[in-house]
Amino acid sequence: MKRASPADELVFLPLGGAGEIGMNLNAYGYGPPDARTWIIVDIGVTFGREEQTPGVDLILPDPAYLEDERDNILGIVLTHAHEDHIGALAWLWPKLRAPVYATPFTAALVREKLREQNLLDKVPLTVLPLKGKLALGPFDIEYITLTHSIPEPNGLAIRTPLGLVWHTGDWKIDPDPLIGELTDEASLRAMADEGVLAMVCDSTNVFVEGTSGSEADVREKLTKVIAGCTGRVAVTAFASNVARVESALLAARATGRTPCLVGRSMLRIHGAAQSVGLLKDAPPVIMEEEAAGLDPEKVLFLCTGSQGEPRAALSRIARGEHRHISLRAGDTVVFSSRVIPGNEAAIHGLYNAFIEKGVGLITADDHPVHVSGHPARDELRQMYRWARPRIAVPVHGEQRHIHEHVRLARELQVPETIAPKNGDLIRLAPGPAAVIDEVPAGRLYVDGAVIVETEGEAIRDRKRLGAEGSVHAALALNGKNAIVAGPHLTVRGLSCVDEEDFDIAVSELERTAEAAFAKLNHGERSDDEAVEASLVRALRKAAERVWKKRPLVDVSVLRL
Amino acid sequence: MKRASPADELVFLPLGGAGEIGMNLNAYGYGPPDARTWIIVDIGVTFGREEQTPGVDLILPDPAYLEDERDNILGIVLTHAHEDHIGALAWLWPKLRAPVYATPFTAALVREKLREQNLLDKVPLTVLPLKGKLALGPFDIEYITLTHSIPEPNGLAIRTPLGLVWHTGDWKIDPDPLIGELTDEASLRAMADEGVLAMVCDSTNVFVEGTSGSEADVREKLTKVIAGCTGRVAVTAFASNVARVESALLAARATGRTPCLVGRSMLRIHGAAQSVGLLKDAPPVIMEEEAAGLDPEKVLFLCTGSQGEPRAALSRIARGEHRHISLRAGDTVVFSSRVIPGNEAAIHGLYNAFIEKGVGLITADDHPVHVSGHPARDELRQMYRWARPRIAVPVHGEQRHIHEHVRLARELQVPETIAPKNGDLIRLAPGPAAVIDEVPAGRLYVDGAVIVETEGEAIRDRKRLGAEGSVHAALALNGKNAIVAGPHLTVRGLSCVDEEDFDIAVSELERTAEAAFAKLNHGERSDDEAVEASLVRALRKAAERVWKKRPLVDVSVLRL
Repeated sequence: MKRASPADELVFLPLGGAGEIGMNLNAYGYGPPDARTWIIVDIGVTFGREEQTPGVDLILPDPAYLEDERDNILGIVLTHAHEDHIGALAWLWPKLRAPVYATPFTAALVREKLREQNLLDKVPLTVLPLKGKLALGPFDIEYITLTHSIPEPNGLAIRTPLGLVWHTGDWKIDPDPLIGELTDEASLRAMADEGVLAMVCDSTNVFVEGTSGSEADVREKLTKVIAGCTGRVAVTAFASNVARVESALLAARATGRTPCLVGRSMLRIHGAAQSVGLLKDAPPVIMEEEAAGLDPEKVLFLCTGSQGEPRAALSRIARGEHRHISLRAGDTVVFSSRVIPGNEAAIHGLYNAFIEKGVGLITADDHPVHVSGHPARDELRQMYRWARPRIAVPVHGEQRHIHEHVRLARELQVPETIAPKNGDLIRLAPGPAAVIDEVPAGRLYVDGAVIVETEGEAIRDRKRLGAEGSVHAALALNGKNAIVAGPHLTVRGLSCVDEEDFDIAVSELERTAEAAFAKLNHGERSDDEAVEASLVRALRKAAERVWKKRPLVDVSVLRL
Repeated sequence: MKRASPADELVFLPLGGAGEIGMNLNAYGYGPPDARTWIIVDIGVTFGREEQTPGVDLILPDPAYLEDERDNILGIVLTHAHEDHIGALAWLWPKLRAPVYATPFTAALVREKLREQNLLDKVPLTVLPLKGKLALGPFDIEYITLTHSIPEPNGLAIRTPLGLVWHTGDWKIDPDPLIGELTDEASLRAMADEGVLAMVCDSTNVFVEGTSGSEADVREKLTKVIAGCTGRVAVTAFASNVARVESALLAARATGRTPCLVGRSMLRIHGAAQSVGLLKDAPPVIMEEEAAGLDPEKVLFLCTGSQGEPRAALSRIARGEHRHISLRAGDTVVFSSRVIPGNEAAIHGLYNAFIEKGVGLITADDHPVHVSGHPARDELRQMYRWARPRIAVPVHGEQRHIHEHVRLARELQVPETIAPKNGDLIRLAPGPAAVIDEVPAGRLYVDGAVIVETEGEAIRDRKRLGAEGSVHAALALNGKNAIVAGPHLTVRGLSCVDEEDFDIAVSELERTAEAAFAKLNHGERSDDEAVEASLVRALRKAAERVWKKRPLVDVSVLRL
């Protein structure tokens, strides 16, 4: 590690996660303002809501600022394998091209993503052991083992000549996490004794009093509730919570049921977990096809789809559209999961569908069959007691979480606090922490084959098309500017009372187009551009009159 | 009231509200199965979520079954003026054409709606007094005063030769509702002494223990929290809760602030309330334009938009886009409202926007500044004690509410319960309650100028256009089936990396269209239909290859 020169600064730049729970992308810069070197910590996605941005499944943080700094990025360091921390890697790596570092389980899932994007041979991926260390230029990085809701959750102690940053990643304090070690309190205390300049910390559950609870409690409860079920039982949980998956598998064994995995990501994570030596004590699982023949009382389905995702296993089962699995009156669904804000309506839709069939529901509302993976307030307090940072930098939250976390840190007497927004360039040292610049920050959409800006023309057009429909007119003109064929109208997405009404409307548009053309021709401007502009204007007006809608209008002028 | 003949039946038919909280439409039928006469109780809307059905603001219950029974409908009886109980009247009345009955405040708001749809002169609207009575064929209807979150909430005691149905409408037990009388316990007890055959009852808050609380408590608290505010204060509440509006106006006066109404529905309801003699003791209000000049400490804005509706006043203020009102650090917004399920993300977005500006928030999460208008479990228990029905028929809820309400009614020893779905034709008498038929039930969309079915072609096309974009090809053919102009391609809503890429893609589609046409021409089938079908097929494939999208593809063939 080099020594600090008088001009050196240590800066923190969140480009995702400071203003939302998902889509984490953090950068740390070191050096004089005109020649910083960077590391990136995590590079995740958030999921498009089909309703808000139709046709867009994945949303990425916009790394434009770091793209310009590409030559100075020393590495992309991953804390854990949740999609909001690794999901953008394969999409954004071509823009950043830095080596990648991760622990074994995370690396196994990253490799799959790279393979899907044909990047496996291009991306240098270094697998670090738990508690491993990594020196990247001025950054000496130590992985510290925490507990969370996925195997191998790590915080990073990032040592620099200007001080140590404790980047928590996602964490909780689980006294019995079932998979993986306990929170490495000794390392945290040792780190704190060195002096922690800044703690960049998870804010997800800052509004939750008390503690988050333990996976061990869930395991016990899950077994108990399933033992009380007759008929078929389906459990839904986040596939990435391998301890939870193991709990469901063990509960199946304990209650005389054979576990059956349902849904692609359940199979994917189950495989990744086995590949790093996890799930050794769990019973073997069967596939859907095999489960069909079993006595209802002898099977337990472990399903994806706890958030009501319409294409996931559980929604298809609820709609009665699943190929191999159907649930009936007397069967039970256990939601070993939470309701992610924004998914309430979809999840309640699932509940309603099952209730209508007479299928019983067991949810975290009434039974302790789920615990969060993020720290509640007592755990946050404990972490501040351990780390004793000079500066509190809350991330991984909407603005309301971040500001509440700032209030909590002040209560806990942390000397400095800062509430970051994405794109805030924050100087952590030297001097008091301060936002010294704002850089471009935003979102990108994965739209079909390409990555585009959220306000790109195609997306804007699709929103308009989706709400207002489209009108297209084609006409052929000869050399004398006379119509020789058309106008031919194509109308899409505009509602009429019936066929007849629709035909009348289309005829009216045809007459409108003809009239607009005639008027234009008299005025003797009839280049393509003028014809198009005039017809578009006239057709827009007509559509608004006929349909009370403002469709996208296009005109094709064919010249003979 | 006629006597029952041996063939007569009393039936209940929910077409909205039995499966959702909004969109209530209930019908009661009396007579032999082949010759029933009907009354309709309430006829409301639900609101389209812009994201789910773009371009659709209003969703109506489908009254198809009742449309066929139009000649036998004796009246449309309205319980109260909430949109989910009266909002569909002006849209569906032309299909039903029955006389309408309402109490004065409800009638005032109904009149406005009829005026907007040019129906005021056509719809026979009878204004009944509170506690009024109404005889419609075999139905003797008595309005019974309840309490809720809008002036003039009424339940209906519907007497028939086969028994009395107690239709609660929306209600709570507010010991001090501020506007209007207390729950008319005496009438309820008297009704119960006659014997109640069935109670058709609000299920909204069946998952909430205890009681809903009183408007009077909110009034006191609202004054207290506003007294503690410096700077500007904005309060948001449902405009239709006139008692709440009055509370905000009185709190303004008590804290030395002039109240200013912001948002169209605030003005509309304020006017309607005054027109029936309400709000007499409230201070006068000023308009936005006048408020701009006032000292920040001397004004209180009462705003629409508590649900985060993007076009409502509060969202525009949060985005800094409101013409007259802006809020800054040190100002306060009081959310005197609840979070309607499904609106979480929008409302949290509002919170975040204000927090980022440094505007303080006071919400029902931390302060008792809101009470629900619907009965919690203790109030439901009280109503069952009062009414002592033989049959419990829960409505006004999703399936999960309705089934929970059935469980509660059983606990309370109600002899019969039934969990209805929209479209269930339920025989209440004679004999045990039972679903004897299922009739068509569904939703209609107000789409621009017309009312359409939810799965209509236009709506389906718009969903596809919104997610996948569109491709249109136009070409002109001469008599010999040779292309004389085009193909001209119009591509909308499909993302490319840049302009150049887009041009390459369009050229590829042009070549695809030419090739498809050439192939077809060799095969000597070249009528318009064949040309269209072949080009559509080829262009779809090409688009999927280029964009990984499945756009709507149309082809215009112009013939010379």
